[in-house]
Amino acid sequence: MNPTLPTLETPTLARWAHTMQRSVLRQMIAIVSRPGILSFAGGLPDPALFPAAEYAAAVTQVLTADSKALQYGPPSAALKRHIVDLVAERGITCDAESIFISTGAQQMLDVFTRLFVNPGDLMILEENIYTGMQQVLAPFQPHIVTVPTNLNTGIDIGRIEQLLSNGARPAFFYVIPDGHNPLGVSMSLEKRYHLVALARQYQVPIIEDDPYGFLNYDGEMLPTLRSLEPDWVFYTGSFSKILAPGLRLGWTIAPEWLIPKLTVVKEAGDLETSALTQRAVAAYLDAGHLPAHLDLLRNTYRQRRDTMLAALDEHFPADARWTIPTGGMFIWVELDDAIDCADLLQHAIDDEQVAFIPGFAFAVKAGLSRNCLRLNFSNCSVAAIEDGIGRLGHVLNRYSQ
Amino acid sequence: MNPTLPTLETPTLARWAHTMQRSVLRQMIAIVSRPGILSFAGGLPDPALFPAAEYAAAVTQVLTADSKALQYGPPSAALKRHIVDLVAERGITCDAESIFISTGAQQMLDVFTRLFVNPGDLMILEENIYTGMQQVLAPFQPHIVTVPTNLNTGIDIGRIEQLLSNGARPAFFYVIPDGHNPLGVSMSLEKRYHLVALARQYQVPIIEDDPYGFLNYDGEMLPTLRSLEPDWVFYTGSFSKILAPGLRLGWTIAPEWLIPKLTVVKEAGDLETSALTQRAVAAYLDAGHLPAHLDLLRNTYRQRRDTMLAALDEHFPADARWTIPTGGMFIWVELDDAIDCADLLQHAIDDEQVAFIPGFAFAVKAGLSRNCLRLNFSNCSVAAIEDGIGRLGHVLNRYSQ
Repeated sequence: MNPTLPTLETPTLARWAHTMQRSVLRQMIAIVSRPGILSFAGGLPDPALFPAAEYAAAVTQVLTADSKALQYGPPSAALKRHIVDLVAERGITCDAESIFISTGAQQMLDVFTRLFVNPGDLMILEENIYTGMQQVLAPFQPHIVTVPTNLNTGIDIGRIEQLLSNGARPAFFYVIPDGHNPLGVSMSLEKRYHLVALARQYQVPIIEDDPYGFLNYDGEMLPTLRSLEPDWVFYTGSFSKILAPGLRLGWTIAPEWLIPKLTVVKEAGDLETSALTQRAVAAYLDAGHLPAHLDLLRNTYRQRRDTMLAALDEHFPADARWTIPTGGMFIWVELDDAIDCADLLQHAIDDEQVAFIPGFAFAVKAGLSRNCLRLNFSNCSVAAIEDGIGRLGHVLNRYSQ
Repeated sequence: MNPTLPTLETPTLARWAHTMQRSVLRQMIAIVSRPGILSFAGGLPDPALFPAAEYAAAVTQVLTADSKALQYGPPSAALKRHIVDLVAERGITCDAESIFISTGAQQMLDVFTRLFVNPGDLMILEENIYTGMQQVLAPFQPHIVTVPTNLNTGIDIGRIEQLLSNGARPAFFYVIPDGHNPLGVSMSLEKRYHLVALARQYQVPIIEDDPYGFLNYDGEMLPTLRSLEPDWVFYTGSFSKILAPGLRLGWTIAPEWLIPKLTVVKEAGDLETSALTQRAVAAYLDAGHLPAHLDLLRNTYRQRRDTMLAALDEHFPADARWTIPTGGMFIWVELDDAIDCADLLQHAIDDEQVAFIPGFAFAVKAGLSRNCLRLNFSNCSVAAIEDGIGRLGHVLNRYSQ
């Protein structure tokens, strides 16, 4: 046994992987995160607001009480009870048997996709969606039909109904009804009722992605889709934006029959979610810290949103349009059709050291949203927002001349 | 819009999901974990040995220094440097650019499978393998060809060579060369050289799963496959068995060209691995705790292994055969062909309140390994092992009569 060594080649990838692309968004965030750049690019919560000391105390308390917190183990019943209480604030009535713990909300987008999508399936998607959902769908190479989104009322449900009545049957709908990423819009009440009715009628489940639902700035919230329809809506929530992303902890509310199936697919992905993290977050919630923390987040981010909206009014061209978000972390801006936001970003970085994400980074098809951009308002001070939007306004004025 | 509600049905799952099964192993572990049962069933490290206080101190130190440890962020460079040093003990020379951080080693089995396997592909597998690998493969519904495994020297490489020379081209090989789960065997030196030569010759990559490599009890270790062949071996390691499973932290060493592709697939699964966990484990390693901790684990588990082997000699039938593991956490026992270990387990639980996992829980095809069982020695005291193996011997003697 002494085979002649062939010229070194590399292993053969699965077929879908030859079309693989890195997330444009993640590549851009690396570029615009250079020191000295004032960035509205990321989707980051403000780390100065993380409850680091309280969480460290929770970890220490849990590990002092029981080293089994570091063992393999079933999902934390204490955490599930807290989630039952937490989602009641989103109008959702459920019991612990309907709750599934995950390693961040991203994992559940992946699990649901693996469970419901066949390669080549039809997907009905908004033109611009969360890039993490696009990455999950990529290996399935779906046939994508896009529907437009109104910047005041959300996804075009009439168009969806038309597609369904013509026979289209997507594996599921994917929506962020509150504080849409990247658009910042929240879905109107009428559209919420309409969408869940269509889900029931045509038997197409809805994934309601709700990472921003607790970051609401204008008082009364519209009902979640899950609160309107328990059987056909799978709700995903996350501690990333209300505590910290570095925990990698999220949850799903799904019909009880689905939980064992979610378990099988999730186990293949990472066996289980850190028992220590589950117990430590439960201990943090036990201590009663969350309500005051949510108030702090809402008050801080509300002020930043208001500052950014006022600065856009002052510095951006009269023909620009943008969303007025009632929640979340983003404002979406549509500029004159002639403007290419990839060029604009280059000028903004070179001339004014300020950054954003061009809209096409979120587009599900090439060529869409070249004149759009996404601004994040959660991770900059009020002063930096006033300064940065002013500088972006200068770039735009020079660029338009 | 007021559609007539149809009779409630449930959403249509993807085609593969209709064949979905819960892990037999995980179901069994739930059954045999009842209070009062002396269990050799799980694959658990001993939680009494977890460095809980030291890890709590590391978390507090990291969070006190920088609340950004709770933010999204790139993989920890400090952790990668520690892993470079750690794998040097496994004979592996690599730099940080070849290291990929994962949410436990399980995640990498999933990522590699998604990256290399097409639905329906051929897989050449041992008759009994780690169930987590089986769960990962299930959605791809592979065509499985089995090869036997010698309990002293490991997988039958001659049979693999025969299959390859007849044209078989699996997407990859999956092996645990040291402390095999469930078999307890470590692969002979000759077979290691032979397998990597075949990988190169036939251009089939190897996933070398090495969760138990640092748990070695008899001095000198054989070289890892990765140390023999850097281009065609993808090595996965884990902190689960050397620190604690509740961290959900692992790593892979892969050729540099593959790292960006691993990143894309991993991001779809969970965006990234907890920045806090990465930094806290790096801080624990900075503090220099690991070498003494590994000594403690090796000394404790060695004694338990020796106790179990002696008890098997004393109490088990003369025609039974078992592995003599040089590492890891498991002993595999083959009993008389007439014995069905599912029945045996029922008797063992009912009559003697002692549990194990029947071998067929690990079989990749139905009907295999009905007369086999897996025993875990890492999570029971010496006294419990002597007692429990004695009781299991009684059951066997009664059952055989």
